[in-house]
Amino acid sequence: MQEKDRIRHDASAMKTVLLIGIGAGHPDQVTLQAIQAIQRTDVFFVLEKAGAGKDTLTAARHAILGAARPDAGYRLATAVSPERRIDDGAYQASIDGWRGARTAVLAELIETGMRDGETAGILVWGDPCLYDGTIQSLHELIAAGADLAFEVVPGISSVQALTAAHRVVLNRVGEAIAITTARQLARLNAADITNMVVMLDGRAAFTRFSDSDLEIYWGAYLGTADEILVAGPLRDRADEIAQMIDEARTRHGWIMDTYLLRRG
Amino acid sequence: MQEKDRIRHDASAMKTVLLIGIGAGHPDQVTLQAIQAIQRTDVFFVLEKAGAGKDTLTAARHAILGAARPDAGYRLATAVSPERRIDDGAYQASIDGWRGARTAVLAELIETGMRDGETAGILVWGDPCLYDGTIQSLHELIAAGADLAFEVVPGISSVQALTAAHRVVLNRVGEAIAITTARQLARLNAADITNMVVMLDGRAAFTRFSDSDLEIYWGAYLGTADEILVAGPLRDRADEIAQMIDEARTRHGWIMDTYLLRRG
Repeated sequence: MQEKDRIRHDASAMKTVLLIGIGAGHPDQVTLQAIQAIQRTDVFFVLEKAGAGKDTLTAARHAILGAARPDAGYRLATAVSPERRIDDGAYQASIDGWRGARTAVLAELIETGMRDGETAGILVWGDPCLYDGTIQSLHELIAAGADLAFEVVPGISSVQALTAAHRVVLNRVGEAIAITTARQLARLNAADITNMVVMLDGRAAFTRFSDSDLEIYWGAYLGTADEILVAGPLRDRADEIAQMIDEARTRHGWIMDTYLLRRG
Repeated sequence: MQEKDRIRHDASAMKTVLLIGIGAGHPDQVTLQAIQAIQRTDVFFVLEKAGAGKDTLTAARHAILGAARPDAGYRLATAVSPERRIDDGAYQASIDGWRGARTAVLAELIETGMRDGETAGILVWGDPCLYDGTIQSLHELIAAGADLAFEVVPGISSVQALTAAHRVVLNRVGEAIAITTARQLARLNAADITNMVVMLDGRAAFTRFSDSDLEIYWGAYLGTADEILVAGPLRDRADEIAQMIDEARTRHGWIMDTYLLRRG
């Protein structure tokens, strides 16, 4: 990988951060480029989420690291990621506060967790450019004067793990695709939807369209041994999937689901 | 990879087709899952496009095959892909005709290019679930009675290669994303655009928004040695990029570009 255009002066003293997309959950969905990035990393930054779900995610990450770095010649620098508490009455302010806190944690890791000239890696589930705030945090740190280079390695997103598992195209010929969150879905009407991917739901926001003619292609824990897939007319499947979400959350302590809604 | 739920009867006699996403152009953007799929393939179906651009694409595909299969213990079955001639006056009919012809070519390859019990692989640029018709063709062949299993291996799309190269997130916090084609872009107003990814353009459809306050993150030949990246206010960059597209098409004989338009 050529870095020369990003190195502004004394390259040996500069810190480099690699944002490495590692796929949606299946260890074999990692790319060769991600493996190479893992292999040139001196220290991995681990931003641990407080609460449940940690064990499974951490185990999958260790499997990827173990396969790519059998030498184990790297360090880990761990910090607790600030908890995301969303105040519905002040959505943007609470998001901004959370992101600011997360940027500060990252700045601290860069300051204390690595030496000049070293390379840090952050393993990101899915793709670092899709619903992840780390890129923005790094741009902000550089704008604020940090002497830092960074690179992004794309990864298979849960959207792609979903459509591949269902063997369904994201869009039929000539149709556009929209990707959104459950929060935004709550403001839409069924008539607004042609091909709509919803990420980060977990609360079965699709049930409000149960009376529509939409089809759903739903998946949770994609790529892992716990993967669940359901597809069919939303009218017939919405309640069943909502119940699965409740049961799976109770069983695993967390759920991450992704789905495609499509006009029939 | 578990196939048991897709195998309906005598598995040894069934033909299997693997649709293997191999990334946007950089040979290291292939996943381990794609390499494993390549390694269990008996015969690769190559649907060659008539006309220019073939050489570069074929060379990149050979590089991926050569790395994953140094044994060279596979066959190639080649067919000429029907040319896509779009009649603007009868868009859907001309697309349907083209897709039907393409499905027929695929059926012929499956019929004559592989034996019962064998596995065929089709290497797909980007992701097989995004703007590619092969999945639909295979579903149609199965619906018409073909005794066929198929699997999809997701791949890094040009959208992801674009955003990673520009180190830009697809969407800012709370915003939705749309993915569309140049053809559909021609029907939109600048005010409709928040985060809009355009694929398969090549004719600089963005120039109609040159007077807007949109930003553009543009890329062509992503992941290859010929990669070109331009970003900035569309107002300042539109003409420059349009000229680059003309020049690059003249030089290479073809162009494949992808871009993100974003409200400022």
